[in-house]
Amino acid sequence: MPVKTIQVSENVLRTNRQIAQQNRAGLDAAGIVALNLIALPGAGKTSLIEQTIRSLRNRMRIGVINGDTSAAGMDAERAEKAGAIAVHVNTAGKCHLVAGMVRDAMARLPLQDIDLLLIENVGSMICPSSRQLGSHWNVLIASTPEGHDKPYKFPRMYGGVDAVVINKIDLLPYVSFDLNYFKGGVEALNRGLLTFPLSCFSGLGLVTWFDWVESMVATGDRGFRQRVLAS
Amino acid sequence: MPVKTIQVSENVLRTNRQIAQQNRAGLDAAGIVALNLIALPGAGKTSLIEQTIRSLRNRMRIGVINGDTSAAGMDAERAEKAGAIAVHVNTAGKCHLVAGMVRDAMARLPLQDIDLLLIENVGSMICPSSRQLGSHWNVLIASTPEGHDKPYKFPRMYGGVDAVVINKIDLLPYVSFDLNYFKGGVEALNRGLLTFPLSCFSGLGLVTWFDWVESMVATGDRGFRQRVLAS
Repeated sequence: MPVKTIQVSENVLRTNRQIAQQNRAGLDAAGIVALNLIALPGAGKTSLIEQTIRSLRNRMRIGVINGDTSAAGMDAERAEKAGAIAVHVNTAGKCHLVAGMVRDAMARLPLQDIDLLLIENVGSMICPSSRQLGSHWNVLIASTPEGHDKPYKFPRMYGGVDAVVINKIDLLPYVSFDLNYFKGGVEALNRGLLTFPLSCFSGLGLVTWFDWVESMVATGDRGFRQRVLAS
Repeated sequence: MPVKTIQVSENVLRTNRQIAQQNRAGLDAAGIVALNLIALPGAGKTSLIEQTIRSLRNRMRIGVINGDTSAAGMDAERAEKAGAIAVHVNTAGKCHLVAGMVRDAMARLPLQDIDLLLIENVGSMICPSSRQLGSHWNVLIASTPEGHDKPYKFPRMYGGVDAVVINKIDLLPYVSFDLNYFKGGVEALNRGLLTFPLSCFSGLGLVTWFDWVESMVATGDRGFRQRVLAS
C-alpha cells in the first residue's frame, strides 16, 4: 500500500510538472511575470496582494488567480475591488493549487492585457507541487506571530522558494520572534535568499517590496533561479 | 484520472477509520481520555501542551504523541521537559497524522500509566482524516493573528471539531480580530461549540482550559458528540 501511494504521487507530480511547463510557456509568450504566493492561512496573502495592486495598478496591468478551498470567492472580490482582473479557483477542499487549476484559470484571463500575474495559493506549507505551477517566482509569506522556528521546521519549503516576505513586523514588540534567528535559518537553507520584512498593517517596508515587484516586471526578470521547473 | 484519485482517497479514508476505531478501543480499555490538537503551525499547540502538562502533571499522568513533518523532535523534547511521557512521530513530509501513525505511537507508550493523552497534530486545517485518529475530543487551536474570517473560510474544519481554543488574545489590541464575528461564524457551523479564549503568553484564560481538561479526565468524559468515528 505505501508503495502504491508513492507511485500515484509521483505520477501526479510528473503530470503536474508538464502542465506547469505549458503554463510557463503561455506566460512567457504573453510577456507576463508571474508570482506564486504561498503562505499559511492568516499570514496576510490577500492583504499583500491588495496593497500591491493599489500601489502598482497605474503603472502596470495586474491579474490575480485566487485559490480557495471553497466556492466563496471573497478574496478574488477584494483583488477586483483593488483594481485587478481576478479569477477565483475553487480547489474543492484541496490544500494547494495544482498546475491544471492554474491552466484553467489562465484560460479565463485576458493574458495579452496583463503584465503581472499574482497567484494566491491556498495555504499549505508542505506539498511540493504547490511550487510547480509555472510561475516565475515562488514567494513564501511568513508572519511574525507564526514564530521564528518555522524555517527550521519546514526546511523543504523554505529551501525551495525564491523570496520570503516576513509580514506583521508591527507585532515584533508583542510576539516572541527573533528576526536574526529566523533569517539565520533561511540563510542556512537557501543562501542569499531575498527577504522582505514588512507590515501590511502599518505599511512599514512595503515600498521595498513594491519596488522589487515593479523592477521584476520592468526588466522582464523571470527568476534567476528558475527553481520551479528544475525541482 | 480525477476519478482514480478520488477512489484512492476513499479507500485510504476507510482504512484510516478502521484503525481509528481500534485506537479508540485501546484508549478506552486503558481508561485514557485523548485530545487531538489540530492547528495551523504557529497557533501555539506546543505552548498550550507545555502549559497544560505543567498545570496538571501533579494531578494526573500525561502522555503526548507529537506529530512532526521532520525527524527533529524538538516539540516532543519540550513536552518531556514539562513532565509528560512523549513520543515523537515523523510523518515524513505528510501534512497531518493518520490513525496508523497514532497506533504505532500508542504501542510505544505505557498506556496503563497514562490518564490523559495529548496528540499534537501537524498543522493542516483541511484534510478530514486529521480528525479520525481515535481520539475522544478534537480540539482546534486558532490564534488571533490568523484573522477572524477563518471559520468562514474553513467551514468543514470548524464544523467538525468538538472545541475551539482561541489563543493569543493578548494580541487583540494589535491585530484586526473581532471575537464576536469569529464566534458568530463558529456558532453558525457548530451550534453550542465550546470556545476557550486564552493566551499562553500572558496566562489569561488558561485556568478555564485546565479546569475543563481536568474535569474531562476526572469524569471520564470521552466526548458527548463522538464525532470522530461518526464523520
